[in-house]
Amino acid sequence: MKNISILGSTGSIGTNALEIIRELKNEFNVIALTANSNYKFLAKQIKEFKPKYVAIGTEEGYKFLKNEFNNIEIFYGKEGLKEIGKLNETDIILTAVSGAIGLEATIEAIKKEKRIALANKETMVAGGDYINSLLKKYKAEIIPVDSEHSALFQSLLAGKDKEVKNLVLTGSGGTFRGKTIEFLKNVELEDALKHPNWSMGKKITIDSSTLINKGLEVIEAHQLFNIDYDKIKVVIHPQSIIHSMVEFVDNSIVAQMGVPDMKIPIQYAFSYPERLENKIIDRLDFMKYSNLTFEEVDNKVFRGIELAFFAGKIGKSMPIVFNAANEMAVELFLNNKIKFLDIYKIIENEMNNHKTINIDNLNVILEVDREIRDKIRREYL
Amino acid sequence: MKNISILGSTGSIGTNALEIIRELKNEFNVIALTANSNYKFLAKQIKEFKPKYVAIGTEEGYKFLKNEFNNIEIFYGKEGLKEIGKLNETDIILTAVSGAIGLEATIEAIKKEKRIALANKETMVAGGDYINSLLKKYKAEIIPVDSEHSALFQSLLAGKDKEVKNLVLTGSGGTFRGKTIEFLKNVELEDALKHPNWSMGKKITIDSSTLINKGLEVIEAHQLFNIDYDKIKVVIHPQSIIHSMVEFVDNSIVAQMGVPDMKIPIQYAFSYPERLENKIIDRLDFMKYSNLTFEEVDNKVFRGIELAFFAGKIGKSMPIVFNAANEMAVELFLNNKIKFLDIYKIIENEMNNHKTINIDNLNVILEVDREIRDKIRREYL
Repeated sequence: MKNISILGSTGSIGTNALEIIRELKNEFNVIALTANSNYKFLAKQIKEFKPKYVAIGTEEGYKFLKNEFNNIEIFYGKEGLKEIGKLNETDIILTAVSGAIGLEATIEAIKKEKRIALANKETMVAGGDYINSLLKKYKAEIIPVDSEHSALFQSLLAGKDKEVKNLVLTGSGGTFRGKTIEFLKNVELEDALKHPNWSMGKKITIDSSTLINKGLEVIEAHQLFNIDYDKIKVVIHPQSIIHSMVEFVDNSIVAQMGVPDMKIPIQYAFSYPERLENKIIDRLDFMKYSNLTFEEVDNKVFRGIELAFFAGKIGKSMPIVFNAANEMAVELFLNNKIKFLDIYKIIENEMNNHKTINIDNLNVILEVDREIRDKIRREYL
Repeated sequence: MKNISILGSTGSIGTNALEIIRELKNEFNVIALTANSNYKFLAKQIKEFKPKYVAIGTEEGYKFLKNEFNNIEIFYGKEGLKEIGKLNETDIILTAVSGAIGLEATIEAIKKEKRIALANKETMVAGGDYINSLLKKYKAEIIPVDSEHSALFQSLLAGKDKEVKNLVLTGSGGTFRGKTIEFLKNVELEDALKHPNWSMGKKITIDSSTLINKGLEVIEAHQLFNIDYDKIKVVIHPQSIIHSMVEFVDNSIVAQMGVPDMKIPIQYAFSYPERLENKIIDRLDFMKYSNLTFEEVDNKVFRGIELAFFAGKIGKSMPIVFNAANEMAVELFLNNKIKFLDIYKIIENEMNNHKTINIDNLNVILEVDREIRDKIRREYL
């Protein structure tokens, strides 16, 4: 029986994780749940999964939960999230909060030498250098939950690290695949929120349509697998069936495939090195997905990947800028304050004006992150 | 440096293997070569690769080689092939002869606890039960060279044997994919010899067009990976890029892909557990193969797979009958003695009239094999 703590249990990844745990009761037990603001949904989850610990992001939520549940420990705010990261009783902590907020709790869990089921891209994008230095010190392990990185993780089992020629990330191409710059100039928020294959949160759906998401994944792959940026490629694969591939030095390619359902990589991060049967995960029907296609990335129109390579290759604090500027830009876009293509402009502008510094502790990461956010906030709000 | 013996060096697999060895001189050395009748080509190979031992199938060839080379040991006939199997100096023996003739040499090599790079389907189809009993006794290992089984072998590295839900063999569908029974009734030999993706010998090209080849692979997969027949599936994949796949219990599918070039699986069987860079192997260009499709097998028209499952599930001596009847039928077809669809009829007829016996030694295998061949020969020649 493995004890699981979930950071961000009311989100898309969190609810999928709980579906898995519900189905595999004899394998997994919920020890802690957290949410930002959706305390009513969290209360429902608490009633069903009976965690010992809970954290909530809002005061309103904290009061409500305190009143509702008197036999569980309830934490509040960012500090609360950090407390969840410190729990000794956790075997696996799923970091399914989006944004840089997951970083502190993840660091605590690494120091406790836990398994991190990592569904938070920003952890390795903003904090990759620091996290990797911690992983050398503590016997923690990170198993990626992102479908692409889980696919790479699984495919890498077929060879040795030194035998990798390229990691080939696949991407659906997002909502606007095939569109022109002219078209993108005037797209509406509602259009950007329609993802062809994956049902996800708003932030990640926008990131997917800008290909910033794929760019974040490039940086994450670099940090997770210790692979040169020159050995990371992206191929557009609109059906999202081949989740990513590893090209080895003998030109043999190993790929992981499956239905586009986050339950597969979430469960794998929980069960690794085992694989478990689970009837709530759909099988891939080759006759339903009988046509798998590949396309080149249109880097002229969708600049998310190019900007990420720029940030990643410069390294140091630049990926933090890339990520923070993007998070702010997406927020602005979601609030109809800027246009779609302004997302790229804001990121590029911040990166061009940034003087990189070394990342050797958490405070530096948080400071750069805050600085960029404040700067954009001042400018646009 | 690994010493390699090649049974069938003048055939398609054999020449590909020698191209690899030529390129990776510091890794591999040729210790023995054999051919059936093409002694002139063999002589050329001897001059280049300087083996210490050679075997040739014909008296004419034997005389020629004896006269030509006086510093190497030359063996003759079936016994000669067996002698090559016994060589102590071999590290890896590549069995690239087609038909049941490779069986004896393979058994000798197993007894010598060598690595068998297995490119001969009949070994595991006709002799699977016996070979597997030997593998329990001797520390030999079989690494498959068939592109499909190599793909399964590589994909299986991503999980445990007990976590396999299905092995999914892919097949191009052969020359006559999509054709009707009516069409097949009158196809000519020349039409059957045109394979869309792979450049191979005549026998295997016909086997590919009847899907008997895929049937043989089903039985081979069962024997190589100790997997129930109910867990072996076949999917038609006309582009031959995904070489086969493993579906695990968590519905995650791991696949091996690459250009349709036998050099990848041959080299892998030589280099395993390592992978080696080799510039004569082409990389897979996703933009060239930008459309991968899947189709169901048309079992009504192409009965090769169905007949193989029938033979395999009955087991014992039945797969020997399946294989021997097919080898004879293909020979008759190649000599214009029978029509294309008669291949199925001959196999089915022999299987229906066969009373199975247990396979616990080599003689039983050879006897059943000979009996079936003689019977068909008497009937048709």
